[in-house]
Amino acid sequence: MGKSRILIIGATGYIGRQVAKASAALGHPTLILVRETTASNPEKAQLLESFKSSGITIVHGSLEDHASLVEAIKKVDVVISTVGGAQIADQLNIIKAIKEVGTIKRFLPTEFGNDVDKTSAVEPAKGLFALKVKIRRAIEAEGIPYTYVSSNCFAGYFLPNLGQPGLTAPPRDKIVIFGDGNAKAVFVKEEDIGTFTIKSVDDPRTLNKTLYLRLPANTFSFNELVALWEKKIGKTLEKVYVPEEQVLKTIAETPFPGNIIISIAHSIFVKGDQTNFEIGDNGVEGSELYPDVKYTTVDEYLNQFV
Amino acid sequence: MGKSRILIIGATGYIGRQVAKASAALGHPTLILVRETTASNPEKAQLLESFKSSGITIVHGSLEDHASLVEAIKKVDVVISTVGGAQIADQLNIIKAIKEVGTIKRFLPTEFGNDVDKTSAVEPAKGLFALKVKIRRAIEAEGIPYTYVSSNCFAGYFLPNLGQPGLTAPPRDKIVIFGDGNAKAVFVKEEDIGTFTIKSVDDPRTLNKTLYLRLPANTFSFNELVALWEKKIGKTLEKVYVPEEQVLKTIAETPFPGNIIISIAHSIFVKGDQTNFEIGDNGVEGSELYPDVKYTTVDEYLNQFV
Repeated sequence: MGKSRILIIGATGYIGRQVAKASAALGHPTLILVRETTASNPEKAQLLESFKSSGITIVHGSLEDHASLVEAIKKVDVVISTVGGAQIADQLNIIKAIKEVGTIKRFLPTEFGNDVDKTSAVEPAKGLFALKVKIRRAIEAEGIPYTYVSSNCFAGYFLPNLGQPGLTAPPRDKIVIFGDGNAKAVFVKEEDIGTFTIKSVDDPRTLNKTLYLRLPANTFSFNELVALWEKKIGKTLEKVYVPEEQVLKTIAETPFPGNIIISIAHSIFVKGDQTNFEIGDNGVEGSELYPDVKYTTVDEYLNQFV
Repeated sequence: MGKSRILIIGATGYIGRQVAKASAALGHPTLILVRETTASNPEKAQLLESFKSSGITIVHGSLEDHASLVEAIKKVDVVISTVGGAQIADQLNIIKAIKEVGTIKRFLPTEFGNDVDKTSAVEPAKGLFALKVKIRRAIEAEGIPYTYVSSNCFAGYFLPNLGQPGLTAPPRDKIVIFGDGNAKAVFVKEEDIGTFTIKSVDDPRTLNKTLYLRLPANTFSFNELVALWEKKIGKTLEKVYVPEEQVLKTIAETPFPGNIIISIAHSIFVKGDQTNFEIGDNGVEGSELYPDVKYTTVDEYLNQFV
């Protein structure tokens, strides 16, 4: 049995590029659907070139062009969507095309965050997560085989500044912490999210399940994260704790899309939504399924900033 | 002729609260549609109380509850939507309900930013703006009387930190500027956006037009803004200019929703999308229509931080 052929929709995005790289690296025939096969800006042109040199096939199309979707989906066994937050609802078009083609063995909708079925998020994160829930229910209603990847925090987003906006390295004097700092979150390097995602696509154990990345070495409360950093730099930081009521006020007083960032942080760091539930029968854990994946630990990740 | 009765959908949000306050202050019978009439958090409870004491009527409902929308819309002459970025597409439900009721004299969909029909934004702002365009075309196709409010930059978002993430006051040593700093943008205080918006709803001059807030005293290039600040503090800042290519790279390497913020900033500060076109026959300018509105100038706004 060969490796399944994979189509990635949203491959030039932040997490999509890692999934595409992992797909090619793990030997899957890989197609990506892009709006512009000839990029108008140098950064994107360079990315498309690197995809091509990895053996990735670039096909032209978009979520709004049904024929392009159907044509691309006909060429593969597995569809992975990594579209951004503004396109979550548009994935109904992918579901329609998958249904029409009828041969797709697995669909991974865009997820790559908290488990949206288990959340205590407030608006606007709540509404955004509800869109992902809607897509999940549509997939299930159509009987399309799926895997939902709940990969929790992007390491590259939270660790380089320890969640302090505007910084490009972790702080060395003062740190602002939402809530009491005791809720545990999971920080996963983007390359590793790509690898775990691709590992799951041909795995019968992840069929119609949620794949959680609750990596033991990367599960930290904010207080533990700060303690680890303090140990590395040999210095104690001043800690400013922001009570939940103040966090909610800040969300209400911040316009879109900044309010999304803060409400997601509230869900993760105040409510503990990445770890405040047991993985039940509908879920599996990535590091348990794939103990061979040598993921980057938070400890290793922070060393680059010392 | 009395003042029209106004329904605001999204009144607890960042700009919606200002529109609701202005509606009540300018003497319009004002209704707001909220999901939870009894707020679960203190900040929201306080806001609802202040609405009530301004004479605003709070009705229960949501975009997902068609009957609640129809019932609320039947009670008013004008509907203003100030829903957040995650709910732009859901405004199709408002359009459907307005069509069903058949008596609405003016609909203002959620806009309150750049003119989305005149944009050179890149993704993901491009896709977000396209959703607003879709709503505009749906309104026009249904023949619903409208006004689109293009209010440009929220002052409260850009001025307190002069666009520097993580700061709570304008910088006094160094400032990062996108592009060459010469594109002109417009900064409008949120309270003033509320006032101009409400002024327009019964005005025949704004019927089926875009109302632009291109306030002369508040139209500044980033370089001019920095020069004004430097003059106020009597100090010259170190300026770090970020070329467009680097801005595009940062957008591509930032996950949702941070990439939205940066791509909007690119559209405004690199491309000059708030001022790089003439207001044509389909548009009117707020300060020309309502010279009596004493809006807060950028100069006055910055004084609080000196």
